[in-house]
Amino acid sequence: MAKANVKEQIVATGLELLHSKGFNATSVQDITDAAGVPKGSFYNHFTSKEALGLEVLQRYAEGVSQVAAVLRDRALPPRQRLQQYFERLIAGNAANEFNFGCMLGNFSTELSNQIPAMRSAMREAFAGSTAALAAVIAEGQQEGSISADAPADELADFVNDAWQGAVLRAKAEQSRAPLERFTRMALGRILA
Amino acid sequence: MAKANVKEQIVATGLELLHSKGFNATSVQDITDAAGVPKGSFYNHFTSKEALGLEVLQRYAEGVSQVAAVLRDRALPPRQRLQQYFERLIAGNAANEFNFGCMLGNFSTELSNQIPAMRSAMREAFAGSTAALAAVIAEGQQEGSISADAPADELADFVNDAWQGAVLRAKAEQSRAPLERFTRMALGRILA
Repeated sequence: MAKANVKEQIVATGLELLHSKGFNATSVQDITDAAGVPKGSFYNHFTSKEALGLEVLQRYAEGVSQVAAVLRDRALPPRQRLQQYFERLIAGNAANEFNFGCMLGNFSTELSNQIPAMRSAMREAFAGSTAALAAVIAEGQQEGSISADAPADELADFVNDAWQGAVLRAKAEQSRAPLERFTRMALGRILA
Repeated sequence: MAKANVKEQIVATGLELLHSKGFNATSVQDITDAAGVPKGSFYNHFTSKEALGLEVLQRYAEGVSQVAAVLRDRALPPRQRLQQYFERLIAGNAANEFNFGCMLGNFSTELSNQIPAMRSAMREAFAGSTAALAAVIAEGQQEGSISADAPADELADFVNDAWQGAVLRAKAEQSRAPLERFTRMALGRILA
């Protein structure tokens, strides 16, 4: 494999394993074995598993950001954009039968207290996802379809956190129910 | 140390380390070293780290259940019980500067997809904490201080999940803000 391909293969396989099994349950050897590259080649590209974890987290956050593109689609009314966003997030979780959870949430609980650089990366990733939510909520408040009795930022942060909690519970119970409950409560009560 | 004391020492130390560092980041040797007992003595009491993890989770859930006792204190109006319950949960997180998170949430994200017995234990623990919440919400609905336009069970499950998400975010950001936002939104909006 060419050098660039080896790195890409490590990142793609790392994303899959670190998401499905978690950071500490996955060794560098697990990743290189699954990627079909020599273990030594890992250290040509990454100084440590932590360094790979940070790169993988960034790639995962880019994926979340692509899902959030629907929040900026001005062809749709704000509430419909939110509905579609939540549906897409749920479909992402259904794709692995609610077993993997959200990598941002997984890394938050597993690594915040272990790897300071991970905490900074997570803070940034959450800021990105709540900013997109806050913008569409503010639009809905302006047109009157979302109640304006709390600031859009506060609502967005709360909804984002509640989503993380719902995903955590869906993973614990291997069930779609917490995610559907989240959507009902977010659209019917928090953002009513 | 007498045999019973050794076991208790392992459980107490295991609770501390598995909560603060996580399950996979903690070895049996870490626990026996910190507990000041020989590594071999671990296996006189537990067949595996998993077995200790399950016992520790049960003890942690008992602690949560003690905090939840205020929810059953009929000397206080339902909303005041909820307020005090949330305050106590926040104080618990403040005691470790928002670094440890909730062990139920941590184990949910780290272990649900790895240890089937852990998933069952978590499901049970969540069922216990939401039942206590649902009962006080139902009381509030009956007396008219909590809106009755959603079933108490649904509200309790959502509030419990949203709490887990708030704790996860508080851990990621090492901040009290997500927990205070949770309380404002839970009492001011979800259970209004």
